[in-house]
Amino acid sequence: MSADSNTTAVCPGTYDPVTEGHLDIIRRAAELFEKVVVGVVAESPRKDTLFSIDERVAFLEESLPPEANIEVEVFDTLLVDFARKWGAKALVKGLRAISDFEYEFQMAQLNRKLAPDLETIYLMASPEYSFLSSSGVKEVARFGGRVDDLVPAVVARRFAELFQ
Amino acid sequence: MSADSNTTAVCPGTYDPVTEGHLDIIRRAAELFEKVVVGVVAESPRKDTLFSIDERVAFLEESLPPEANIEVEVFDTLLVDFARKWGAKALVKGLRAISDFEYEFQMAQLNRKLAPDLETIYLMASPEYSFLSSSGVKEVARFGGRVDDLVPAVVARRFAELFQ
Amino acid sequence: MSADSNTTAVCPGTYDPVTEGHLDIIRRAAELFEKVVVGVVAESPRKDTLFSIDERVAFLEESLPPEANIEVEVFDTLLVDFARKWGAKALVKGLRAISDFEYEFQMAQLNRKLAPDLETIYLMASPEYSFLSSSGVKEVARFGGRVDDLVPAVVARRFAELFQ
Amino acid sequence: MSADSNTTAVCPGTYDPVTEGHLDIIRRAAELFEKVVVGVVAESPRKDTLFSIDERVAFLEESLPPEANIEVEVFDTLLVDFARKWGAKALVKGLRAISDFEYEFQMAQLNRKLAPDLETIYLMASPEYSFLSSSGVKEVARFGGRVDDLVPAVVARRFAELFQ
Amino acid sequence: MSADSNTTAVCPGTYDPVTEGHLDIIRRAAELFEKVVVGVVAESPRKDTLFSIDERVAFLEESLPPEANIEVEVFDTLLVDFARKWGAKALVKGLRAISDFEYEFQMAQLNRKLAPDLETIYLMASPEYSFLSSSGVKEVARFGGRVDDLVPAVVARRFAELFQ
Amino acid sequence: MSADSNTTAVCPGTYDPVTEGHLDIIRRAAELFEKVVVGVVAESPRKDTLFSIDERVAFLEESLPPEANIEVEVFDTLLVDFARKWGAKALVKGLRAISDFEYEFQMAQLNRKLAPDLETIYLMASPEYSFLSSSGVKEVARFGGRVDDLVPAVVARRFAELFQ
Repeated sequence: MSADSNTTAVCPGTYDPVTEGHLDIIRRAAELFEKVVVGVVAESPRKDTLFSIDERVAFLEESLPPEANIEVEVFDTLLVDFARKWGAKALVKGLRAISDFEYEFQMAQLNRKLAPDLETIYLMASPEYSFLSSSGVKEVARFGGRVDDLVPAVVARRFAELFQ
Repeated sequence: MSADSNTTAVCPGTYDPVTEGHLDIIRRAAELFEKVVVGVVAESPRKDTLFSIDERVAFLEESLPPEANIEVEVFDTLLVDFARKWGAKALVKGLRAISDFEYEFQMAQLNRKLAPDLETIYLMASPEYSFLSSSGVKEVARFGGRVDDLVPAVVARRFAELFQ
Repeated sequence: MSADSNTTAVCPGTYDPVTEGHLDIIRRAAELFEKVVVGVVAESPRKDTLFSIDERVAFLEESLPPEANIEVEVFDTLLVDFARKWGAKALVKGLRAISDFEYEFQMAQLNRKLAPDLETIYLMASPEYSFLSSSGVKEVARFGGRVDDLVPAVVARRFAELFQ
Repeated sequence: MSADSNTTAVCPGTYDPVTEGHLDIIRRAAELFEKVVVGVVAESPRKDTLFSIDERVAFLEESLPPEANIEVEVFDTLLVDFARKWGAKALVKGLRAISDFEYEFQMAQLNRKLAPDLETIYLMASPEYSFLSSSGVKEVARFGGRVDDLVPAVVARRFAELFQ
Repeated sequence: MSADSNTTAVCPGTYDPVTEGHLDIIRRAAELFEKVVVGVVAESPRKDTLFSIDERVAFLEESLPPEANIEVEVFDTLLVDFARKWGAKALVKGLRAISDFEYEFQMAQLNRKLAPDLETIYLMASPEYSFLSSSGVKEVARFGGRVDDLVPAVVARRFAELFQ
Repeated sequence: MSADSNTTAVCPGTYDPVTEGHLDIIRRAAELFEKVVVGVVAESPRKDTLFSIDERVAFLEESLPPEANIEVEVFDTLLVDFARKWGAKALVKGLRAISDFEYEFQMAQLNRKLAPDLETIYLMASPEYSFLSSSGVKEVARFGGRVDDLVPAVVARRFAELFQ
């Protein structure tokens, strides 16, 4: 940010569905950067999603604070190309645990090979969300467990419709 | 950076001595923030330093690019108080390995308790420096091993005086 | 156990198939608690099982010591609901490695959200079983490798029928 | 607990000083066992303590709930001998992070060699205390940082006397 | 190698496709042993491969130095049986990260149970390849990202045909 | 071993004192290499030793099999210089746990910088010794605990003299 004063960051993810842990990272990124683009992966190459891309985007838009500096966008390209398109200076990711760290360490190096001028920065998950993942939440919801504190209200309602 | 356009970050450390790995993180931080304050711990509570605080500062000043946005400062207070004094919005740390991650996860949470509005952000060490630590370098130098690629020239010269 | 003297614990798992490592944990749990309910997941949400639920239960029942305080039961609900149904005070799990630790740390926090009065306690795997998993055993058996020391006799016989 | 109904567990530590994280584990152990003996290491073989053994015991006694089933005792023998003396069936330890896990995995195996009938059971630290350690707290207090949420009131007061 | 002077090692893998990281390990193994057999798993039991067994072998043969002491062979048996068939004294594997370490620790113990006289030895990945995996490379290539430095030329060409 | 048939490896350590875990690694190395030099660090730069260098060497010599291909030697230089002096092609180290892995990953990279033609190879600790360390053994022995299975007889006798 030394040179240009207008800085953008990308918070990428599948968000299937968005959790309170994701929202925490996005909000903290929005404190650090002038603009945050939440990049939603259209299709996950490694697994089917429970929610459609339209639902995943709608959950995010309904849950995020209506601040001017956060935008939700879909992408189906290489992440570094998406970041470039938006003129982003950095990717922002959350770290919850060692397994995140290892995966992210590898991704950071790979992405730097592909786009040397795009930095990836990491924020540590808040302790109250450090155990939280979309897949964990889905497993609980599937059996009718309460997930009200773990996901935004719009997602909790949708789970109730689906699994009860 | 949403509100105020003038952003400062702190890169804290003992820097006993500064390595090429430290310089890499500081330089990358200087790309992300308008001003970077390299905060040098006057005395390490847990271990004696090999180099005096004056030497450690001199090594940093001689090794860092003479860019306007990097400054080296000593501190002997709580890190969060030092950051506050400089109006810093964030601390920037490098992560090399799991053991870093665990220690830093705990420090990040502790520092957020002490200063909720100060964010800590992490950059992954570049692979070529991922094995590099001040203590490793000192162990090699002590036995006359070559450390020219691992530390800036001024430090390599000082090691040669000390141990040869 | 301060108040009520009659204490029950649940040892949950897919047990596809039960290994000597599982049996070690169940036996140790049965030393600590008055009653142990081995809870067998009817269907694994994340993967197909090699053995049917009836076979998995039969393997367990044939391998466990015929002590009065161990019972094998199937469940297809949320684990915390199964534990509640049996009046269990605790879940008992084994830890073999870091990857177990990370997964279990997250599950423990999630389960405490869902059932605050149900404690999860962990036992460290015995060294001789610390490398042992149902999936590893199946991979070996599939190619005709010897698994006699790794699973109870009834399972070893069944593998021989299947893969030889 | 199968055979004898009267069960005792030991929560060992240096407690220099006791933190809210320690208290959380001790309280949870007291729910699981009829009696909990908090075993305070008289002298730490690996490091000097900040507080004397009398202070460390006093902090614990003042902070623990005055329930009949928790007792604080000093020991300067092998931990397994202390546990035997009190007729304990189990040791109870908290796990916060991977580094704890690794150390504890090794200690559990070593202690089982020394006392095969003494089980060690682990509870996962509550997320809000997962970053908390006595040494971290001391570092913060030393520089005048606030530790009120991290340690019991009696310890916070003593820190204020010492470092302000 | 104390007794027999003629020593063979096996470098097993799925190689879907071979990366520069694999080649680095195979070359280093060929410095340590008189003969290296690169063992290519015909079918991966856990996942479909992108490339056929014939393509995977061809990529390896075209990329490896034409030294006399490296041979590429397919196997569809238990790894220890394949090693035995070739009279191998050791398996050679690369370690990039903690997750590798954990998986390999378990496999090493399992393989020693199955073949006590076959040793598994590990080489640390070179830092420049420590973030590199076949699956990561495939994900990048799928979206048209450049993988020229990460895989041998023959593989990069094939990716270009497939995904562009 | 491709070119020269006469291969030497170095097993370095402080051996304060040698444990059954060390002996296991040395014996396995002696199966793999024609000659193994056990390199004993004269003084540990990071900590005082309990036993003198003469005692540490004597323990090793008395415990090792009197095979022609194992030799015990002291060194007080850089490890890579010691290895070079003996014409060693490789260093051999044992890995017990993640913390070993991380430390060794960094040392391997550092040593390759210093001596590119010296390979470091790793063997996984046998499960029965995976929890064993010199410092753990000393802590147990200091309090009169039994260490007979953990160290060779000569060391166990010396502990008995020292601490009983």
